[in-house]
Amino acid sequence: MSSLDFIMKPRAIAVVGASTKAHTIGSDIMKRLQEYAFQGPIYPINPKGGVIEGLPAYPSVLDVPGPIDLAVIVVNSNFVLQTIDQCHEKGIRGLIVISAGFKESGAKGAELEAALLQKVRDYDMRCVGPNCLGAVNTHPSVRMDACFAEALPLRGDIGFVSQSGALGGGILNILKDLNIGFAQFISIGNQADVNAETAMEYWENEEDVKQILLYMESIQNPANFRRLATRISKKKPILALKAGRSDAGASAASSHTGSLAGSDKAADALLRQSGVIREFSLQKLFATAKVFSNCPIPKGNRVAIVTNSGGPGIMATDAICELGMQMAPLSDSTKETLRSFLPAAASVKNPVDMIASAPLEHYRRTMETVLADDNVDMVIAIYLPFLGLKDIDVAKCMMQVREEHPDKPLLGVFMTTSDFFSTLSDMDVTVPFFMYAEEAVDAMARLDQQRRWIERPVGECVRYAVDRDAVVATFKQALAENRDQLTTRESMDVLKAYGIRICGSGFARTADEAVAIADAIGYPVVMKMTSKTTSHKTDVGGVRVNITSAQMLREQYADLIAKLEQKGLLDGLEGVIIQEMVKGSREMVCGIATDPQYGPMMMFGLGGVFIEVMKDVTFRLAPLTNVDAAEMVRSVKAFKLLEGARGTTPANIDQIEETLLRLSQLVTDFPFVDELDINPLMISEKNGEAIAVDGRIKVRLAEAQGALA
Amino acid sequence: MSSLDFIMKPRAIAVVGASTKAHTIGSDIMKRLQEYAFQGPIYPINPKGGVIEGLPAYPSVLDVPGPIDLAVIVVNSNFVLQTIDQCHEKGIRGLIVISAGFKESGAKGAELEAALLQKVRDYDMRCVGPNCLGAVNTHPSVRMDACFAEALPLRGDIGFVSQSGALGGGILNILKDLNIGFAQFISIGNQADVNAETAMEYWENEEDVKQILLYMESIQNPANFRRLATRISKKKPILALKAGRSDAGASAASSHTGSLAGSDKAADALLRQSGVIREFSLQKLFATAKVFSNCPIPKGNRVAIVTNSGGPGIMATDAICELGMQMAPLSDSTKETLRSFLPAAASVKNPVDMIASAPLEHYRRTMETVLADDNVDMVIAIYLPFLGLKDIDVAKCMMQVREEHPDKPLLGVFMTTSDFFSTLSDMDVTVPFFMYAEEAVDAMARLDQQRRWIERPVGECVRYAVDRDAVVATFKQALAENRDQLTTRESMDVLKAYGIRICGSGFARTADEAVAIADAIGYPVVMKMTSKTTSHKTDVGGVRVNITSAQMLREQYADLIAKLEQKGLLDGLEGVIIQEMVKGSREMVCGIATDPQYGPMMMFGLGGVFIEVMKDVTFRLAPLTNVDAAEMVRSVKAFKLLEGARGTTPANIDQIEETLLRLSQLVTDFPFVDELDINPLMISEKNGEAIAVDGRIKVRLAEAQGALA
Repeated sequence: MSSLDFIMKPRAIAVVGASTKAHTIGSDIMKRLQEYAFQGPIYPINPKGGVIEGLPAYPSVLDVPGPIDLAVIVVNSNFVLQTIDQCHEKGIRGLIVISAGFKESGAKGAELEAALLQKVRDYDMRCVGPNCLGAVNTHPSVRMDACFAEALPLRGDIGFVSQSGALGGGILNILKDLNIGFAQFISIGNQADVNAETAMEYWENEEDVKQILLYMESIQNPANFRRLATRISKKKPILALKAGRSDAGASAASSHTGSLAGSDKAADALLRQSGVIREFSLQKLFATAKVFSNCPIPKGNRVAIVTNSGGPGIMATDAICELGMQMAPLSDSTKETLRSFLPAAASVKNPVDMIASAPLEHYRRTMETVLADDNVDMVIAIYLPFLGLKDIDVAKCMMQVREEHPDKPLLGVFMTTSDFFSTLSDMDVTVPFFMYAEEAVDAMARLDQQRRWIERPVGECVRYAVDRDAVVATFKQALAENRDQLTTRESMDVLKAYGIRICGSGFARTADEAVAIADAIGYPVVMKMTSKTTSHKTDVGGVRVNITSAQMLREQYADLIAKLEQKGLLDGLEGVIIQEMVKGSREMVCGIATDPQYGPMMMFGLGGVFIEVMKDVTFRLAPLTNVDAAEMVRSVKAFKLLEGARGTTPANIDQIEETLLRLSQLVTDFPFVDELDINPLMISEKNGEAIAVDGRIKVRLAEAQGALA
Repeated sequence: MSSLDFIMKPRAIAVVGASTKAHTIGSDIMKRLQEYAFQGPIYPINPKGGVIEGLPAYPSVLDVPGPIDLAVIVVNSNFVLQTIDQCHEKGIRGLIVISAGFKESGAKGAELEAALLQKVRDYDMRCVGPNCLGAVNTHPSVRMDACFAEALPLRGDIGFVSQSGALGGGILNILKDLNIGFAQFISIGNQADVNAETAMEYWENEEDVKQILLYMESIQNPANFRRLATRISKKKPILALKAGRSDAGASAASSHTGSLAGSDKAADALLRQSGVIREFSLQKLFATAKVFSNCPIPKGNRVAIVTNSGGPGIMATDAICELGMQMAPLSDSTKETLRSFLPAAASVKNPVDMIASAPLEHYRRTMETVLADDNVDMVIAIYLPFLGLKDIDVAKCMMQVREEHPDKPLLGVFMTTSDFFSTLSDMDVTVPFFMYAEEAVDAMARLDQQRRWIERPVGECVRYAVDRDAVVATFKQALAENRDQLTTRESMDVLKAYGIRICGSGFARTADEAVAIADAIGYPVVMKMTSKTTSHKTDVGGVRVNITSAQMLREQYADLIAKLEQKGLLDGLEGVIIQEMVKGSREMVCGIATDPQYGPMMMFGLGGVFIEVMKDVTFRLAPLTNVDAAEMVRSVKAFKLLEGARGTTPANIDQIEETLLRLSQLVTDFPFVDELDINPLMISEKNGEAIAVDGRIKVRLAEAQGALA
C-alpha cells in the first residue's frame, strides 16, 4: 500500500471534530461520508462523546477500537498538532486537514504549518491540506466523499486537483451539472505536503483515472512538475487551468494564495514542454474533459462534418481551419455511396449537407460511410431541429454508431434546447454532445493536440564537448572585480568556449596589427575605433564597414587617424576593433532569462528593431531537449524568413538549434547565469550561418561567488 | 404606413397554401399564427376551400371579403407568380414567400426568382424570401408568428435577421431556451427583395427594437450596408455573426447560398468601419445580446469585481486585462467603507474578495459601495455556492441593486448549477447572469466596444486638391498601349499628381545631366544604371549609394563608365537614374486591393521582408474617412516603431494618414484601379517623412477604357 493510498483508499476513517451542530463542517463531512456510503467504518471523534449521525463518538482517536487509515481533521487550528500526535500514536498514516488558520493567515499560521509538516514527515504520514475542501474517491470499493462541496459526486474517469477550495467546490457542482463524473478529487489547499505533483504521480498508474485535471494558481516545484508531467501526459491527458495570467490577475493570485505566482510566460512554457493541455476558461476545460472521456485519440487531423443545415457546417469548417485541423477530403467511393441514398439537393462533399429533412436513417448511413473512409480521422455530426425527427433519437443513433466505430472520435453538435441536455444527464452517454459547433471543434482540437504530443519524440538534453575551464576562468575574472555584468569581450569568450559561432574580432593598436587580425578573420571586415573620450564613434566617422582588402584597411586606418587628429580627438584613442562583417538582413535574438520561481528560461525569436514591437519570440524552460529546440525555432513567425523566404539564403537551422542547446547546457552548468542575450544572432546572407554578433551576460553575484569558491 | 409595415405589422393575413394535412408547412403556419394569437383576421387560402384550423378557407385571395395586408405563400414554386398576380389584384402589398425552388435550385429557379422580383417591383409590393422560414413580430398589438420554427417566440427587444433558414430556426430555439426574447425576426432566405439592409433601415426608428442581430453568409450591397450600418449602429448596437471566414468555410458558404462569399478580410473591414460588433460564435452572439438587453452603455472601461471566492476573481481579472479593459482603482473612501463591514480576512482591493461566507447583506452593501465609486464604470458580481446562501436570493438582490443603479452595467457570474438558470427563465430577469467569469467579461467587453464606437467621431472623406488631368493623361498613355500595368515611372507620376510624397528621381544620359538632377533633388543620392543588356545591375557595380556631393557623383559616374567599358558592357547602357537617398530602417507598405464583391480595399502595414511573414497589415474599405485612416495607422503593431521606438525619429503620422486618404481619393476618382502598391513607403530617419520609394499600379483594362473613352 503506497502512502497516498491511506488517504485515497482508506479502510477506516476518523472524523476529528465531528459535530452534531447543523451546517458546520464537522457535521457536513459526517453526513457526506455516510450519504455517499463509505465502504468502511466511520468513527466520529468529539471530546464530548455521544452519538453523531447515528454513530457512537469517541473522545479521541486513541479510544477507537479498530484500526484507522485516515483522519479527517476539522478542529480549530490550535488543536491540529496535538491531534496529529494522537493520530500517530494510533497508527494513522493518512491525514486530510480541512481546518484553516495556517500559512494563508500570516506569519504565525505559517509557523504552525511548518510544524505540521515536520510532524507529517517525522511520523511518515501523508497529509492533504491544511485549509482545504477535502478529497473524494468514487470507486465502488471505496466510495469516500470526505469533502464539503454542495453536490454528491458522479462516478467517472477524471482525477481532479484543485488549488482553490471554493472554486474546487464550484467546479464539482458544474461537473455534476454537465454530467461529467470523476474518479478522484483532491483539494490540495495550502499543499503543505500533498500537491499537484503528488497527485499526478499517484494517478499515473491508477487504472481508475484516465485523465488528470488541474486548477492551479501557482506551481510549487516547476522542475519536478515538468519531469512528472512530461512522462505522465504521454499516458493520460493532463488538462490545466492556470489562473493569474495577467499582471493584475497574478497579483490577485498571490494575495489570494500567499504563494508566488511566477511569470505567466514561464508557466506557459513549462506546461507546453510538459505536454500539459492548457485551458484558459473553465468552460473549455469541461468541454475538453468531456471529449477525452468519450473519444479515442485520433490517428490524424482530418475532420468530416455531417449536417442537416448548411450554416453550422460553415461555422464548424471555419473553426476547424482556424485551429490547424483539416477538412477531410472524402474519397470518391465515399461520395458515390453518399450520393446513392442522399437526395439530389444534398452536398456529398465535406461538409456533407444532408439537407434539413434528413431522416434518422440518413444520419446513420452518412456517419457510418464517412467513418469508414480512410481519409477521415474524426467526425462531427450536426443536428438542427427538424419536424418529425427527435433530437434524442439522433443522439441514440450516434451512440450506436460510435459503438461500432470505437476507433475514431465522433462528436455531436445539437443546436436544440437545454431539455435535450437535461435528458442526456439521466442517460449513460458515450458521445460528447455540444450545443455549438465552435465548442465541439475547440474540444476536438485538444484531441488532436494530445495526438501530436503522443507522437512527439521525447527528445534528449544533448551535451556537447565544451571548454568549461575557460568559462570558469572568465567568470572568476569578473567576480574578482565584483562585477555581475561581463564585458562584451568576456561574454563573447564565454559563448565561444561553449562552441557558439561568434563573429570573429580582435583588438589592434596599429595598422599592422589590424591587418594581421583581418587576415586571420577573412575579408570583408568592419573597423570600429575604441576611445576613452569619444563614445559616439559613428558621429566622428569611427566606424568603417565593408573593408574588402588589406590595402583598403590600411587606407581607412590612416584616414581615421588623420580625421581624429584634425578634430583633436586622437589622444583618447585606445585602438580599433576589427570585426568580421556579417552581411545579412535577418537579425534574430536568443538568450536566457531567469524567472524567480521557474528558473532559467530560454528565449528565441526575431531581433533587431522588431523585438519589442512584434514580440515574435518564444520561451522554453531550461534545460532544453533537442525536440524543444527544434520546436522553438519553428514556433516563431520569422521561421519562414529563416527558411529563405523572398530569395534569401536559407538559414542553417541545425546550427540555430545547436546554439540554443549549447546555451541551455551553459546555464545548466552555471546556474548562476541570470541573463544572457545574443542580440543580434545574425543570419549570414553568404551561407546561412547563425553568428552571434553581440553578447551580454549577467550573473547573480553572491550565488556565482559561492559556486565558484 | 411604410412598405415593410405591410409585412411586419399586417392588419390581416392570408395564408396561401394553408392545409389541413398535419406536419406540412401550410398547416404549421396556420397553427402558429393562431397559437400565438395574431391580432387580426387570418384567411386560409386553399383551392379546395373547406375549414382549416377552424377557419373557413377561401379558394383564392380574391374571394376573401375583407382587406388583406400580407400574404404568406407556401404553395409550390410553379404557382407563386400567379399567386402574386392575384395578391396584387386584391390590393395586398406585403408578401412572405416561404416556398423553395428559386435561385438556390439552379438556373431555372433563378429565372423564376427574377420574374418574382419584377412583379414585386411592378406591383409596389415588398417581399420576404423566397426560400425562407418566415417572419415574426412579438409586439402585443401584432403578435404575428408567421414562421415555422420549433418554439413560440419570447417577447424582447431584439431585431433579428437570419440568412440561413434552418439556422435561424435553431437560433430562435436557443434564444428561447436562454430566456432571450426578441421584438421582430425576419428570415430573408434568398433575399430577392428584403435583405439585411432593408431590415436594419426599417428597425432604425422602430422603438420596439433596441438592438439588431444579423446572421450573414454574404453581404449583398457592401456600400449600402456600410452607409446604413454606420449610421444605425450609433443608435442601436448591431451584432453580426458572419460565417465563411476560412477559405474552406467560404467555399462551403457559397455552395450553400449560391451567393459570392467575398473575402473575409474585406467583410471584417466593412463590419469594423460600420461599427458592427462582429461575433465569431453563436454562443458569444447570445451572450452579447443578453448584456445589451439588460445593461446601459458604460461611461468608461474600469471594472470592479465583487466575489466570494478568489479563484474566479483572478480568472475575471485575467480576462478583463486581456480584453483591453481596466481593473477599477477603488477610491480610498470606498475601501474604508468596505473595510467597515467586511471581515478582516476579506480583501477590499479590486477584486473585492468578501470571502466564502459572505452573507446576502455583504453582497448588497459591497455592490452598492463599488457602484457608487466614481472610479468604477462597470461591476461584475461573482457567486460561488456557499452553505446558507441561496443563489436565487443573491440574484434577486442584484436585480434590486441594479434598479437603484441603472446607470452602470452590473453583471452576475453564478458558478452554480443549471437549476439556477432554469429558475431564472421563469422570472423577469433584469441582470445578465453567466455561469463563467470569462463569458461575462467577454460580453462586457462588447459594451465597452459599443461605448467606444459611440464616442468615435464620424469622420469625413477629405478631398484634396490634386492634378486629376495628369493622372488621366498617364492612364490614357498606358491604355493606348493596351497595358493594364503602369510602368514604375508612370505609377510614381500618378502618386505625385495625387500629392503623395514620392522619392525624387530623374533620368540622365551624361554626368552633367546627372549632376543637374542631383542638385535639384538634394544630396545624398543614389545612382542606378539602366541598361538594355544588363539586368543584374548590382552584380556589375551599377548601383552606387550615398553619393554626397556633385564631385563625388562625377567621380562615381566616371568610375561606372570605366568599369562597364572594361567589362565590355558599355554598349547597352541607356543612362542612369539619380534617386533621392532615403535613409531609414522602417519600411512600411500601403496600397489598394480590389475584392470582387466588396470593391476597393485600402491596406497599410509593415513592409519589407516582413510583410508576408508578420502579416502586420490592416485593411479598410474605400473610401476612407480621416478617422478610418487614423485608426488604420494605429492598429498595426508597427505603430510603435512609427512613434519612434528605440531611438528612431518619430514618423510624420499625419502625413501617413494623408497618404492613405489621398490613395482613397485616387481609387474613388478612378474606380478601375485594381491594384496599387507603395512598397516601400519608407520612413526617413532624417525627418520622419513617409516617402513612396517604389510604386506599382494596375487597372482593369476594359473598365478603364470605358471610363476614359
